Amino acid sequence: MGICTFTGLAMLKMLAGFLLLLFISDGISSEQGCSYQNVLNYLNLTRSNELFSMTRPVKNYNTPTHVSLEVLLYAILDVVEKEQKFIPYVWTVMRWNNEYISWDPNQFCGIDNVSIPTDILWKPDLTIEEMTEKDKAPPSPYLTISHEGDVEVQNDQVLVSTCMMHIYEFPFDIQSCSLSFKSVVHNAREIKLYASENSSEATELSRELMRTQYEWLFINMSVSTNYANKSADPDVVIFTINMKRRPIMYIVSFLLPVLFFLCLDLASFMISDSGGEKLSFKVTVLLAVTVLQLILEKILPSSSNIVPLIALYCIGVFALMMLSLLETILVMYLTGKDSQDNETDGDQSLESCNKDQAP
Amino acid sequence: MGICTFTGLAMLKMLAGFLLLLFISDGISSEQGCSYQNVLNYLNLTRSNELFSMTRPVKNYNTPTHVSLEVLLYAILDVVEKEQKFIPYVWTVMRWNNEYISWDPNQFCGIDNVSIPTDILWKPDLTIEEMTEKDKAPPSPYLTISHEGDVEVQNDQVLVSTCMMHIYEFPFDIQSCSLSFKSVVHNAREIKLYASENSSEATELSRELMRTQYEWLFINMSVSTNYANKSADPDVVIFTINMKRRPIMYIVSFLLPVLFFLCLDLASFMISDSGGEKLSFKVTVLLAVTVLQLILEKILPSSSNIVPLIALYCIGVFALMMLSLLETILVMYLTGKDSQDNETDGDQSLESCNKDQAP
Amino acid sequence: MGICTFTGLAMLKMLAGFLLLLFISDGISSEQGCSYQNVLNYLNLTRSNELFSMTRPVKNYNTPTHVSLEVLLYAILDVVEKEQKFIPYVWTVMRWNNEYISWDPNQFCGIDNVSIPTDILWKPDLTIEEMTEKDKAPPSPYLTISHEGDVEVQNDQVLVSTCMMHIYEFPFDIQSCSLSFKSVVHNAREIKLYASENSSEATELSRELMRTQYEWLFINMSVSTNYANKSADPDVVIFTINMKRRPIMYIVSFLLPVLFFLCLDLASFMISDSGGEKLSFKVTVLLAVTVLQLILEKILPSSSNIVPLIALYCIGVFALMMLSLLETILVMYLTGKDSQDNETDGDQSLESCNKDQAP
Amino acid sequence: MGICTFTGLAMLKMLAGFLLLLFISDGISSEQGCSYQNVLNYLNLTRSNELFSMTRPVKNYNTPTHVSLEVLLYAILDVVEKEQKFIPYVWTVMRWNNEYISWDPNQFCGIDNVSIPTDILWKPDLTIEEMTEKDKAPPSPYLTISHEGDVEVQNDQVLVSTCMMHIYEFPFDIQSCSLSFKSVVHNAREIKLYASENSSEATELSRELMRTQYEWLFINMSVSTNYANKSADPDVVIFTINMKRRPIMYIVSFLLPVLFFLCLDLASFMISDSGGEKLSFKVTVLLAVTVLQLILEKILPSSSNIVPLIALYCIGVFALMMLSLLETILVMYLTGKDSQDNETDGDQSLESCNKDQAP
Amino acid sequence: MGICTFTGLAMLKMLAGFLLLLFISDGISSEQGCSYQNVLNYLNLTRSNELFSMTRPVKNYNTPTHVSLEVLLYAILDVVEKEQKFIPYVWTVMRWNNEYISWDPNQFCGIDNVSIPTDILWKPDLTIEEMTEKDKAPPSPYLTISHEGDVEVQNDQVLVSTCMMHIYEFPFDIQSCSLSFKSVVHNAREIKLYASENSSEATELSRELMRTQYEWLFINMSVSTNYANKSADPDVVIFTINMKRRPIMYIVSFLLPVLFFLCLDLASFMISDSGGEKLSFKVTVLLAVTVLQLILEKILPSSSNIVPLIALYCIGVFALMMLSLLETILVMYLTGKDSQDNETDGDQSLESCNKDQAP
Repeated sequence: MGICTFTGLAMLKMLAGFLLLLFISDGISSEQGCSYQNVLNYLNLTRSNELFSMTRPVKNYNTPTHVSLEVLLYAILDVVEKEQKFIPYVWTVMRWNNEYISWDPNQFCGIDNVSIPTDILWKPDLTIEEMTEKDKAPPSPYLTISHEGDVEVQNDQVLVSTCMMHIYEFPFDIQSCSLSFKSVVHNAREIKLYASENSSEATELSRELMRTQYEWLFINMSVSTNYANKSADPDVVIFTINMKRRPIMYIVSFLLPVLFFLCLDLASFMISDSGGEKLSFKVTVLLAVTVLQLILEKILPSSSNIVPLIALYCIGVFALMMLSLLETILVMYLTGKDSQDNETDGDQSLESCNKDQAP
Repeated sequence: MGICTFTGLAMLKMLAGFLLLLFISDGISSEQGCSYQNVLNYLNLTRSNELFSMTRPVKNYNTPTHVSLEVLLYAILDVVEKEQKFIPYVWTVMRWNNEYISWDPNQFCGIDNVSIPTDILWKPDLTIEEMTEKDKAPPSPYLTISHEGDVEVQNDQVLVSTCMMHIYEFPFDIQSCSLSFKSVVHNAREIKLYASENSSEATELSRELMRTQYEWLFINMSVSTNYANKSADPDVVIFTINMKRRPIMYIVSFLLPVLFFLCLDLASFMISDSGGEKLSFKVTVLLAVTVLQLILEKILPSSSNIVPLIALYCIGVFALMMLSLLETILVMYLTGKDSQDNETDGDQSLESCNKDQAP
Repeated sequence: MGICTFTGLAMLKMLAGFLLLLFISDGISSEQGCSYQNVLNYLNLTRSNELFSMTRPVKNYNTPTHVSLEVLLYAILDVVEKEQKFIPYVWTVMRWNNEYISWDPNQFCGIDNVSIPTDILWKPDLTIEEMTEKDKAPPSPYLTISHEGDVEVQNDQVLVSTCMMHIYEFPFDIQSCSLSFKSVVHNAREIKLYASENSSEATELSRELMRTQYEWLFINMSVSTNYANKSADPDVVIFTINMKRRPIMYIVSFLLPVLFFLCLDLASFMISDSGGEKLSFKVTVLLAVTVLQLILEKILPSSSNIVPLIALYCIGVFALMMLSLLETILVMYLTGKDSQDNETDGDQSLESCNKDQAP
Repeated sequence: MGICTFTGLAMLKMLAGFLLLLFISDGISSEQGCSYQNVLNYLNLTRSNELFSMTRPVKNYNTPTHVSLEVLLYAILDVVEKEQKFIPYVWTVMRWNNEYISWDPNQFCGIDNVSIPTDILWKPDLTIEEMTEKDKAPPSPYLTISHEGDVEVQNDQVLVSTCMMHIYEFPFDIQSCSLSFKSVVHNAREIKLYASENSSEATELSRELMRTQYEWLFINMSVSTNYANKSADPDVVIFTINMKRRPIMYIVSFLLPVLFFLCLDLASFMISDSGGEKLSFKVTVLLAVTVLQLILEKILPSSSNIVPLIALYCIGVFALMMLSLLETILVMYLTGKDSQDNETDGDQSLESCNKDQAP
Repeated sequence: MGICTFTGLAMLKMLAGFLLLLFISDGISSEQGCSYQNVLNYLNLTRSNELFSMTRPVKNYNTPTHVSLEVLLYAILDVVEKEQKFIPYVWTVMRWNNEYISWDPNQFCGIDNVSIPTDILWKPDLTIEEMTEKDKAPPSPYLTISHEGDVEVQNDQVLVSTCMMHIYEFPFDIQSCSLSFKSVVHNAREIKLYASENSSEATELSRELMRTQYEWLFINMSVSTNYANKSADPDVVIFTINMKRRPIMYIVSFLLPVLFFLCLDLASFMISDSGGEKLSFKVTVLLAVTVLQLILEKILPSSSNIVPLIALYCIGVFALMMLSLLETILVMYLTGKDSQDNETDGDQSLESCNKDQAP
């Protein structure tokens, strides 16, 4: 019976042991170790552990999550005036604290940070207000967690964003486009958002990174934070990129030719009114300017309420040429009328000449 | 034996305990707590719990789900007349009640709402009838649930929708494009859909939000609900966006040049018929108008059953010029014939002159 | 001992009970109830139950699955002649029977249908033969199952399909494009496919639905079913959409201008051959027609083996103008030669005149 | 004690039975049956069974997997000379043997094949070397397995592939584009690849399937297999599609007009040199040819090292016209000089005439 | 009792056995075997085993992972000067060691490598700095692991990358575009990156692979490694592709015509100033050059700070023609004035003549 008891007890223990083993085997298998997996096992950080992916990782819901944000400009890929699109290639770094992550590096041979797949941890739902298309660049597959619970996500993103263009001074314009980061569902009490760099740092670092500057010359980047007035609103961090257009190709291929044609039109006043060539010359030059003006329409958005200077320049040149044409036609008409009168006079004088010769 | 019994019973209890532990461990681990995860544990709200994601979350199937909808306009990104596309950038908020979600905030240190990943809860299958492409903007990853079971989903969407354009008065036209929200599989008895804002609120809020107004000036947004006649049909909430085109660039780059060319053509009547320059001038002006007319064809859809005014204007100017050209040719022909007759007369008079001189 | 036996037996029962509980807890928890989840529990319809998602849902493999198909036309979004693409926006409804789904509505407070996520049930692999791109519209997330096992999937799809265009009579053409639905892996013995509407119903319903008709006027939709000859082949249901182009913009912007230019060319015969203006006039008109012809090339596919009427019209006008130009040159040449001969005669007469004057 | 023993044993058996039941319940539930699910249960073919999805399905790794490949051409969707792209719409069928799949049809009422979702079985990693974009057509969701372990995957694919274009004889050119199928990670010892059709069969079947032939006329399809020289290399099956361009639209809209303009230029030699109209005529014709030449630049890739015949034709016509223009200018210059000399002679004669008249 | 003990023990063993069986069944089922699955079972390499997919696969975190990289160029698909885009089609091979993978081939009939799905193993997070769009080509679904733990991933990728274009010498330019591979989250202490080929090998192998060279002639590929200065920075391997444009089409369709027109303009000096044809001729030639110049604007980015030679050539020719036109106008004006003076002289002489005749 004692044996039976023992057997029962032993069996009990064995069973418990086995079940425990089951627990342990996907829990904390070995408490110390030098591999990254040991840390994850210690933290019980697995794909299926919903503690890490479901909610904001704070132990008391009143604790806000401090999210620091760093944005650097890699390249200005495209600026489409017609569609008011701005496509920068940026480098973003987000950092925040996860209270469920914490380990003693001494227990794990000194491991103080581990990189793990991005999708198994909760991430702040920062969106960019101006963004109108999904990020086209491949996302970074891993993020880094430190032993103090700090999580860092780095990413390079191609942002297709909408930006209000000021085309009044085109092509000598300076544009400033903003990227406003904010959380969609978390208010300022839940997520405290701030930029980890100030404007001058961001500008300097971006300048170092910038590889290819095409049409647009990066001037600077200003960083500002709009702290929420009401706690129900989210904090907003705004990165504003200022840039200057390089106008040289527009000068060479548009402004100069139009000016040339204007010169030609002015020079045409020296052509004598008598022959038909003056009119033909002037109307051909007008046609050439019309063709050039169509190019302009491809570049500029047909939208602004103020007519840009370049359109005024173009339509001005056009109008000037038209007026000079009208003036030429008028002069020719008057001259023609005059000479007709003269001719009739001439005919009279010829008649008189004939009369003179007659006798 | 008693011991054996005891052992058996104890073993039984132990086993039951372990199994209970298994249950509990992924059920309700700690009944009170201040972290969001405590709430989720209390609700048993996990990714694998199909109670939350499979069906409409009501305890009695006769209870309808009231879905409130709020749509605000962020920006009018594009209006493509040629393809009859309307691409607004909107902010949508959907709210409904999930009967399986409910907790007492007092039990959880006052937590009254939790944000969780979007994909683990049932969502109403609202579609926009006019939408022809998937949302291009990145979706919001989280939604918010309240302790009373209210679920709120916020999203900013770039909607590529089809819209009937009225181009008769182009470019002085006003367009109104609709977004009709309705459920695909749920009828009005199952989902009661209504807008949480009236027309004037929606207009005012959208006006505040609107950042970049390009070609289109937002006038207002009207909200209306078509309640289903038959209970088998779904409710439909229709948001209609009215907007006005800013015509200034079209005036500057199309209407004015055409008018200028018409003036030139009229002015050309002052050119004397004698030389070849009149014809050459007029046909070159006609060519320029033809080129401008091709621009028009790029903008306007080749589809409407009514010819838009601008096309009539253009083809009218074209026809006028052609008629004036034909008239010029006719006049020249008649003048030519006349002068030929005169010449023969002149020859006769010359002959007579010679005769006069002869003796 | 008896006790021991009892204990053992009891323990046995308890264990069995617990295990049963495990079964039940994710099986049939409560046999009656008024919530949708009760039905799913009764059916054991879960995401992980492979019975529902893996194979054709029949209890005997010889039973064919009857799939009824309904297609309605919402809008004709685009017809690209150049690329022979046809992009309709259609509404499709598929219905079939799942033998594993069945419940007694009386047991569940009268619930006779439940909507569940689309991806957890087997669906017939109907493809459209002509389709060349994935559906761009967002798919419907839910389908409906009835208590008799009928499954209904509704979807609105933007179909990018290839279609043989007949451009001979462009722009007065009528096009008919087909959408052929068939199963890829299932033959006619396995899936019996039929249309749930006849041609006239489909036409009438589509006419009611159609919102925006742009360039194309919907004529009708015919539905036909090609039953497989051999049982190894699949049934094919073909929906053919007939539509008529609205030619008015093409008339206004292409046919009329070309006709105008032809008139001008004909009128130019009245211009006197003497001056250079006739040639210059005719060649400018020819240039204008060339420019217009290039527009044509953008619209029409460079592919057909029959030259479309409009191209013949265009090249005909072009050839006519060229011939008239050649004729003009020839006439001018001959006239010139004639007048040269006359001039030499004239010189002779002048000489004689001088001679006459000499004495 | 015996009872106790019995109890223990019984309990043991019961436990074993339950555990067995657990096994069975997701293993082989019922050995015979007429539903497809019975077969899958017998095979233990579930989504989670990694035996089927992880590795090449052979019991001995030395056994090669024979993969037969069938490719039929549905349509030639696009050929972009400028970007050297070839976009065919093909029908591919892959067949291979899975050694883990095998059942006796007699045990299952005669079921000899089952269709199951595509993603749960291992598939050969065949890629097309020339392919540069992901398949745009929706993939087939199911594949078929037979009772002998043969797996068949059918798919219709829109392949965006790169193809070396030979544009020397454009638009009378014949292009041949290849699709080379090979495995990326498996060498010829592991996957033996062969085409299940020969060239003439492939050609004939494709001809039957072909629905829409636009610009390109399908000539034939040749199938060849490059067996690997070294066993570490993979077998390659190459399908070469030969096709002929239909040149009629290019003739009508490009070759003919250029020829017409050349005729006009030649005819212009008959225009008298005296007036200014000859030069003006010739330069306008030259301008028209320039405009047409720009069209050519849109079609042809600016890449080939051999100048295509059509470009030579065009630049030849251009050069010819220019030479004739230069010749005209020279002749006019010389004539002008001559007539000036004559004029001075004429002045002299006039002077003499005056002298004659003087006295 | 002994029996009871035995029973208990036996039961214990049986239970243990069953549980062990459970373990084993998804662990190491059979220690020896000739199928790939045996190896995976031995390694316990399953989709759910997070040991393989979560962290860098080293047993001691101080061990760096050596990643060797091989990049071969397949084709240069596109070079877009306007958008500064470079789209190569490359073949990349990555190799590294996974310390958790290791088996004795002798135990498994000599299996020394296994191919498994790509997504179940950890992969280095190598990104290409210049890449701005996700890989468009379909990724390879399998990777290969060897018995020593070496993992090899092969992939063919279509890389849309940004590249600084030097267009000064266009179209006789040589471009060099870089692809910089580096890890995002791992520094040089964690991932040691090196290229497995040197520049000459890469060039030679790429030359063999290259199939289609369109506009761009591949010159060579240079490989260099930037070892991190600070251990916190990552190693960077840079592949630089040098290529030469084939300028022949640009010569034929742009440079030659412009030169032709310049010749015509120079030749026009031989045209006599008297008639109107000289001016008309010159202005038409100028118009033609303007049209050609617009083509240039489509190709060249409107961005560079140095004006490319070809633009200078074009604007130079343009300016030259304009100056010659102005000169012509001036000469005509002066000649006209002169002849007017002469005429008045002539009138005077005529008067005197008349006077002479008078008496």
